[in-house]
Amino acid sequence: MNETEKRQPAKGPAKEEEATAPLDGLQRHIMPFGPEAPLRLDSGESLSPFTIAYETYGALNADRSNAVLVCHALTGDQFVAGPNPVTGKPGWWPNMVGPGRPIDTNRFFVICQNVIGGCMGTTGPMEINPATGDPYGKDFPVITIGDMVRAQAMLIDRLGIDQLFCVIGGSMGGMQTLQWASAYPGRVFSAIPIATAARHSAQNIAFHEVGRQAIIADREWRNGNYIAEGTSPAKGLAVARMAAHITYLSEAALHRKFGRNLQDRERVSYGFEADFQIESYLRHQGSTFVERFDANSYLFITRAMDYFDLAADYDGVLANAFRDTKTRFCVMSFTSDWLFPTSDNRQIVHALNAAAANVSFVEIDTDKGHDAFLLDEPEMISTLRGFIDSAAQKRGLGK
Amino acid sequence: MNETEKRQPAKGPAKEEEATAPLDGLQRHIMPFGPEAPLRLDSGESLSPFTIAYETYGALNADRSNAVLVCHALTGDQFVAGPNPVTGKPGWWPNMVGPGRPIDTNRFFVICQNVIGGCMGTTGPMEINPATGDPYGKDFPVITIGDMVRAQAMLIDRLGIDQLFCVIGGSMGGMQTLQWASAYPGRVFSAIPIATAARHSAQNIAFHEVGRQAIIADREWRNGNYIAEGTSPAKGLAVARMAAHITYLSEAALHRKFGRNLQDRERVSYGFEADFQIESYLRHQGSTFVERFDANSYLFITRAMDYFDLAADYDGVLANAFRDTKTRFCVMSFTSDWLFPTSDNRQIVHALNAAAANVSFVEIDTDKGHDAFLLDEPEMISTLRGFIDSAAQKRGLGK
Repeated sequence: MNETEKRQPAKGPAKEEEATAPLDGLQRHIMPFGPEAPLRLDSGESLSPFTIAYETYGALNADRSNAVLVCHALTGDQFVAGPNPVTGKPGWWPNMVGPGRPIDTNRFFVICQNVIGGCMGTTGPMEINPATGDPYGKDFPVITIGDMVRAQAMLIDRLGIDQLFCVIGGSMGGMQTLQWASAYPGRVFSAIPIATAARHSAQNIAFHEVGRQAIIADREWRNGNYIAEGTSPAKGLAVARMAAHITYLSEAALHRKFGRNLQDRERVSYGFEADFQIESYLRHQGSTFVERFDANSYLFITRAMDYFDLAADYDGVLANAFRDTKTRFCVMSFTSDWLFPTSDNRQIVHALNAAAANVSFVEIDTDKGHDAFLLDEPEMISTLRGFIDSAAQKRGLGK
Repeated sequence: MNETEKRQPAKGPAKEEEATAPLDGLQRHIMPFGPEAPLRLDSGESLSPFTIAYETYGALNADRSNAVLVCHALTGDQFVAGPNPVTGKPGWWPNMVGPGRPIDTNRFFVICQNVIGGCMGTTGPMEINPATGDPYGKDFPVITIGDMVRAQAMLIDRLGIDQLFCVIGGSMGGMQTLQWASAYPGRVFSAIPIATAARHSAQNIAFHEVGRQAIIADREWRNGNYIAEGTSPAKGLAVARMAAHITYLSEAALHRKFGRNLQDRERVSYGFEADFQIESYLRHQGSTFVERFDANSYLFITRAMDYFDLAADYDGVLANAFRDTKTRFCVMSFTSDWLFPTSDNRQIVHALNAAAANVSFVEIDTDKGHDAFLLDEPEMISTLRGFIDSAAQKRGLGK
């Protein structure tokens, strides 16, 4: 987007700085932060100017106490509950967010922001670097989960919201949720980190590194300058997505869905076509992903996840990240999630217990793996509905 | 190698057809199979002429009853117990094969063959296609585990050995072991499949497909003709190796060995260098692998593993693959192996039980993951020593 677009008249609940900008023809919320409001980064650098692209659903109540911040995962975006203008598909969490859903848009004011470093309108490596006039590319500053959350808090300030009723997210969204609760304890009434960890494991870093090397190995990546040079590291990005996608599913789910079933053939081809359904499925995941995601964003956001280690700022004592917290927590994991296994989530619970926090923990029995949090998992839905309803009553938001 | 090299005078225990050829300056066993002995392939094609590169250790006894065939894994080779002339490193199974080891070269005649499709001297995609005068490349015929074993049996015939005392291997070597026991039951006195499966799972096919796509995505792959065109898909092959390598290790071992330790630095770099030890380790695995392995071989051998489904020829009833077998089996798995988990190995045991076979099964408790079979795992070593000694006594090979 250009400056003209950013300066269009404000709409919706935000202050006068806000504007909307066309994104593939649809008007979307874009909040600009000018030179007066730089984003301070953990690296010591700062990012300025920058914009945050976000969506809202429902209405903010009079005392601004019913706001729910939904944090998206690595390849997610702000279109949590409405149609995605890029893919044309429905929002990514239709079972959780919407009228009558656990995060009920008839009741709550739901905010979902594209993270810093992303590629859906928030400032990231594909946006223009004002210092050069070219896209940032590889020169975008390396960001952290803390930076993402700091930017989000600046938007929440602009929206005039002091305390969020709830911060919720799965996977990287859960990391942001933990970071919110730790960095802004007074601003988070309740927090729901799902299928996540307080720090990225060696195995998770390893899978991310494979994805990054697949992108960097693609000659079309051009040292990060592919936009300026008119190329696209689509093949490398597709390989990265394929590798990652395996980690989102459980072995049991892959066996149940695909097994060794052949794709559109009676017998193997004795060649390198996608003989097996699982191959065809993975190739499809790779090829559709590159249509909606930026390769450099993938590099920067995976790096932010790798760097996440919430206890590191507290001499390795995770409980101290939550000292004196009054936030109500609901931590959730899935039995077949091997990317962020129950043990990772239990570490969060143990730390919260050690901090004498108000925390409930639920492990959902499912064979759907890490992706379960995005799916219609009845026990997850009913558990979160119960927790959110109960927290809403305590917040004076009873039905 | 060229024809002149293949026609050098024979050495060692083989018949007159055998020859030796220099491989990086060392004399190695190379067995040529000419037009009179084509390799019949499962695809319906045949491969002719072809050669098998192999190593032997120890001496064949008078009644030719003390031969042990060791089958190597995906990226293994024939140098099981002696120095590898390419890497300069010791053989890949020093704890298992050698003087005084469970596969005691003072007692047994040990044979290890580079598989068909390989890149260490046996005919594979980097060898010259006699029909074109260029390397086979992508035109090499797609092979199966059955084809590998059929070729091995032709070499065993040439060596004048009717029955092998033992066939043993881990991972893809275990698949060959199962194939041997099923296809040539009378020729296998004992069989030790380790950390393997009777069929490749959807998740395993998925990881292989990622590796293949990483290679194919590399522009230097040149549709498989990189040798003729003087390029090298080293980056793609390195990414494939990195992805695969993660699957060889357990999450616990990665955490114990690397955790979130930084590599040669006090704090993260806020960049894309290998900040973490796990990143540095993986990059090293990738870059050293490409020095010793051929990208097309990787494609063909992974495909052979994907195609492996021993029950498929028996209407899906695995037990029938072992009907009336007299072979003594020892099946072994490792608790932390998630590539070929205990459940895969237990399926083999159940089928052998259903076939009323003589089978013992041991699950080794270790956190070292799939790679445990290659390591100095004391319980594995002592268990296999016991099984082999006992089988040797039954075969009249008592100490």
